[in-house]
Amino acid sequence: MKVNQPKPVGAISLVDQVEMRLREFFREENLQPGDALPKESELADSMGVSRTALREALSRLKTLGLIESRRNRGIILTQPDILGGMERVLEPTFLDTNTLQDVFELRLVLELGISELLFLRKTPVSLIKLEEIVEKEEATDDRLIKIRCDADFHATLYKISGNDTILRFQKMLQPIFNYVYSGVIPGRSTVKKPVTHRDLLEVLKTGTAGKFRESMQIHLQVYFDTIPE
Amino acid sequence: MKVNQPKPVGAISLVDQVEMRLREFFREENLQPGDALPKESELADSMGVSRTALREALSRLKTLGLIESRRNRGIILTQPDILGGMERVLEPTFLDTNTLQDVFELRLVLELGISELLFLRKTPVSLIKLEEIVEKEEATDDRLIKIRCDADFHATLYKISGNDTILRFQKMLQPIFNYVYSGVIPGRSTVKKPVTHRDLLEVLKTGTAGKFRESMQIHLQVYFDTIPE
Repeated sequence: MKVNQPKPVGAISLVDQVEMRLREFFREENLQPGDALPKESELADSMGVSRTALREALSRLKTLGLIESRRNRGIILTQPDILGGMERVLEPTFLDTNTLQDVFELRLVLELGISELLFLRKTPVSLIKLEEIVEKEEATDDRLIKIRCDADFHATLYKISGNDTILRFQKMLQPIFNYVYSGVIPGRSTVKKPVTHRDLLEVLKTGTAGKFRESMQIHLQVYFDTIPE
Repeated sequence: MKVNQPKPVGAISLVDQVEMRLREFFREENLQPGDALPKESELADSMGVSRTALREALSRLKTLGLIESRRNRGIILTQPDILGGMERVLEPTFLDTNTLQDVFELRLVLELGISELLFLRKTPVSLIKLEEIVEKEEATDDRLIKIRCDADFHATLYKISGNDTILRFQKMLQPIFNYVYSGVIPGRSTVKKPVTHRDLLEVLKTGTAGKFRESMQIHLQVYFDTIPE
């Protein structure tokens, strides 16, 4: 339970301040996607900063997807893509060991946590889709097809959750998850009676959210076994 | 289960391409945090683009926390803050209804999913901390103190999870969660026998991860009740 320290004051540059002040201004004015910003010259004047500093801050907000330039309309507010910034930096080689481990665990946390959403939003069509994947998996001995079915099965669960943010988040986390897990010797599970995709599907069809969570936990035990205390 | 469409080719600007190409280059070269990039002029030449386009792409990567300028060393790779981009756009007023609802649900998903981590990483000290919060909550009738204890209890669970990314993520999601939930009439829960923080603490002390998940689900039922099918 470590306490974070505040940043030294010198670490907050003028452009940092202008960026923060602009985001504050959007909030205070309750600006909505589609609303136009005041002119650059007016913004710079009222904030008491140079056009250069203002433009750099605006350029950052464009990168973050919060504003965009429109011909004849100047700069307007846009609906930001909340995962966009993360998507562009979530590369295994860019991240340190702690962050990689955090992301690995985060994916397991999501997998266990979405159970309630699945039971709220499962449909006959989505259960048929899962059935097809499980049948394909059971019918093959090809290791690569099995791996693809595994990925398909879990990706389809996320689709059933009906939460586009979680679905996309999961897609972004997956390569990191595979990267972290790839160092582990397979078959090291301590589970005596494993839970298959077929078992999970049956629980999703006729069981409860609580039972599904328990089954998923056993299904993922081999990954949980790798997590340090 | 909607299928996303590819972006029209025209929507990918030159600067977009340069930015993507640079990130690819970092990956291919397996560049690590601390490594220096080639000079701007060399990068622009080998990519066949103008210095202006290159600089704009580099400026974006700086905003995303992937690189920074160092005196005498030029531009170096940095360990990116994977939540930094999201943190700067996660404001209720900036987001549409669907995204707000997604984030609301994501917080519930995390809360149910971290159970395993809590049982791996709980310590006598962290249980005492929870005990103190529960006692403070039980000893008061002041509504605002109770609300603060509630927030404290859940925040402490995230700290116990030992996952800094999830802890910080939760802190970012909390204001959105409160914003979405604030429209709901309190006391609408369908739970007959509610689970209190005291109950959760007892399960964390002497129960199992599975039992804790079930208890947490009941504890949060009032929120789950608001989720549309």
